[in-house]
Amino acid sequence: MSDRRNRQFRLAGRPVGLPRAEDWQLTEEPVAEPGEGEVLVGVEFISLDPAMRGWMNEGRSYVPPVGLGEVMRAGGAGRVLESRDPRFATGQAVQGLFGVQEYAVVPAGSLLPVDEALAPLPAHLGALGMPGLTAYFGLLDIGRPEPGQTVVVSGAAGAVGEVVGQIARIKGARAVGIAGGPEKCAYVTGELGFDACIDYKSENVAAALRDTCPDRIDVYFDNVGGDILDAALTRLHRGARVVICGAVSQYNSTEGPRGPRNYMALLVDRATMTGFLVFDFASRYAEGTAQLGEWVRSGQLKHREDVLAGFERFPEALLRLFSGQNQGKQVLQVAGLGA
Amino acid sequence: MSDRRNRQFRLAGRPVGLPRAEDWQLTEEPVAEPGEGEVLVGVEFISLDPAMRGWMNEGRSYVPPVGLGEVMRAGGAGRVLESRDPRFATGQAVQGLFGVQEYAVVPAGSLLPVDEALAPLPAHLGALGMPGLTAYFGLLDIGRPEPGQTVVVSGAAGAVGEVVGQIARIKGARAVGIAGGPEKCAYVTGELGFDACIDYKSENVAAALRDTCPDRIDVYFDNVGGDILDAALTRLHRGARVVICGAVSQYNSTEGPRGPRNYMALLVDRATMTGFLVFDFASRYAEGTAQLGEWVRSGQLKHREDVLAGFERFPEALLRLFSGQNQGKQVLQVAGLGA
Repeated sequence: MSDRRNRQFRLAGRPVGLPRAEDWQLTEEPVAEPGEGEVLVGVEFISLDPAMRGWMNEGRSYVPPVGLGEVMRAGGAGRVLESRDPRFATGQAVQGLFGVQEYAVVPAGSLLPVDEALAPLPAHLGALGMPGLTAYFGLLDIGRPEPGQTVVVSGAAGAVGEVVGQIARIKGARAVGIAGGPEKCAYVTGELGFDACIDYKSENVAAALRDTCPDRIDVYFDNVGGDILDAALTRLHRGARVVICGAVSQYNSTEGPRGPRNYMALLVDRATMTGFLVFDFASRYAEGTAQLGEWVRSGQLKHREDVLAGFERFPEALLRLFSGQNQGKQVLQVAGLGA
Repeated sequence: MSDRRNRQFRLAGRPVGLPRAEDWQLTEEPVAEPGEGEVLVGVEFISLDPAMRGWMNEGRSYVPPVGLGEVMRAGGAGRVLESRDPRFATGQAVQGLFGVQEYAVVPAGSLLPVDEALAPLPAHLGALGMPGLTAYFGLLDIGRPEPGQTVVVSGAAGAVGEVVGQIARIKGARAVGIAGGPEKCAYVTGELGFDACIDYKSENVAAALRDTCPDRIDVYFDNVGGDILDAALTRLHRGARVVICGAVSQYNSTEGPRGPRNYMALLVDRATMTGFLVFDFASRYAEGTAQLGEWVRSGQLKHREDVLAGFERFPEALLRLFSGQNQGKQVLQVAGLGA
């Protein structure tokens, strides 16, 4: 092991606005040895998530910020290279919180095994991983759509959004997506089978919601915040549930986030806005993963991943999330390793 | 009856910002005769509610806007002068939606009888009326405080707020009020028995919430919106309930309402923000009224009313709500009538 080198992206500065090149430091060090109960993983794919932008900020949040000089926090998928725990054998495919690095030594208890027969590794960072579970619990436990109701989801072509709309359809609800650009919208309605998709780049979202949601919105699953959240609030049905999953439009604001101007629609429409974190459903991950896997196997749940190859391109991969360039789940393939 | 004249305030214009004198028209017409099933009420007290400002605006809300030229909508209390319905006798004290006028002819089914032995008429527009019921259902059904939890309420010296904090205490929770000025705060802690009161005019609310809520906020009952709502969002406990009852700081904004910048605290703290309207609890008004009456009778629920006398002073009485001048429930006493 001692001749292997581990490259890492460490947080070098706290960005104001979009992360810049100088906010990262690319370091290299010898690969660590796993201790008792630990596993050495060769990271093959790194997950890019909008939440990572929040982890770069100081201040109270649901997890501590990444410290300056620390390896950037990230989910990933890879393979066991060396195991000091009986639960994992060399060669086993796994996912976990590996950080932005090529090798990770982690406690065996923090690893989830990956079923490669179901789908290749990147899908386990998307529809079959945390984004899929986020969609599953956020929609079913917080949004609680009933058959015939209308579910609207923003970021509909993204890792979470694409799963939200498809589960809504599986459960007998109408699914309306909001996404940026004709290509994404064509994917959302054509490939994923949503009932409609609004292109926020070319359409007036509030007007388009009137057209596509004649019975108003029962569940609005928000990944973006900002103007799109405000537009959705104008179209709520009595007793609607607004699920706050993310606010990607606000994470890089240099003026701080802006609140939903139309929040008094919650009163007018006796509606609820609830924030949630998938981590709170950890005791039910097995249920969610099994169900998502079953839907993928049966062809009811489609997914796609946007794979950028080359470890050193991590900063660029992250920025794709905020420019909306990614088509489906954004992952970074670690060069020189993997299948 | 035919020699009696009925004065009325009608909506003459739709204000931008605070209502101005020219937004009202004072009219006079003969008192109408009640038809079969109707009752003629001599209005003695008119209720002033922040929500009235919203009713003056065009656009979709939970009730239609008051039309230009129509008598302004308002709750009131008075006495039956003439009844064409067996349920009501002349002299009976009643409350209902009488509008801003001296006499009202209303369907008997829309009237609620008033128990004057319990408290004088104005209290039936406050702690024993809609504001009391709003506090009762909003706190207990939406906020759901548990014993030992911390309830924070803005507008704590107002008609709804004063009841919210006292019910919280009755139910074994801590009650922290937010109000404007030392006199109101002294009333809230001294008279009403809240555990603490923050003077938003002289204190940094976020810092004061840190001091007064060491275990954070489990229920935040919001009557005001704006900066105070934002401050409360910084101090939520995991799983907190934010009850949206009103946004009096925003109703007269000429730039439109501003949203809660810190709404992503809902995600960080897995919290819920819910809007509600007391009207949805109409089937349980009897329960609420009986319970509020019992608490008033036993001395557990205190209340006060701010009575301005003189029908023609209605525009001034309404503005007191937005300048925060009112001490407790603001009512207008109709001159020349009443006890």
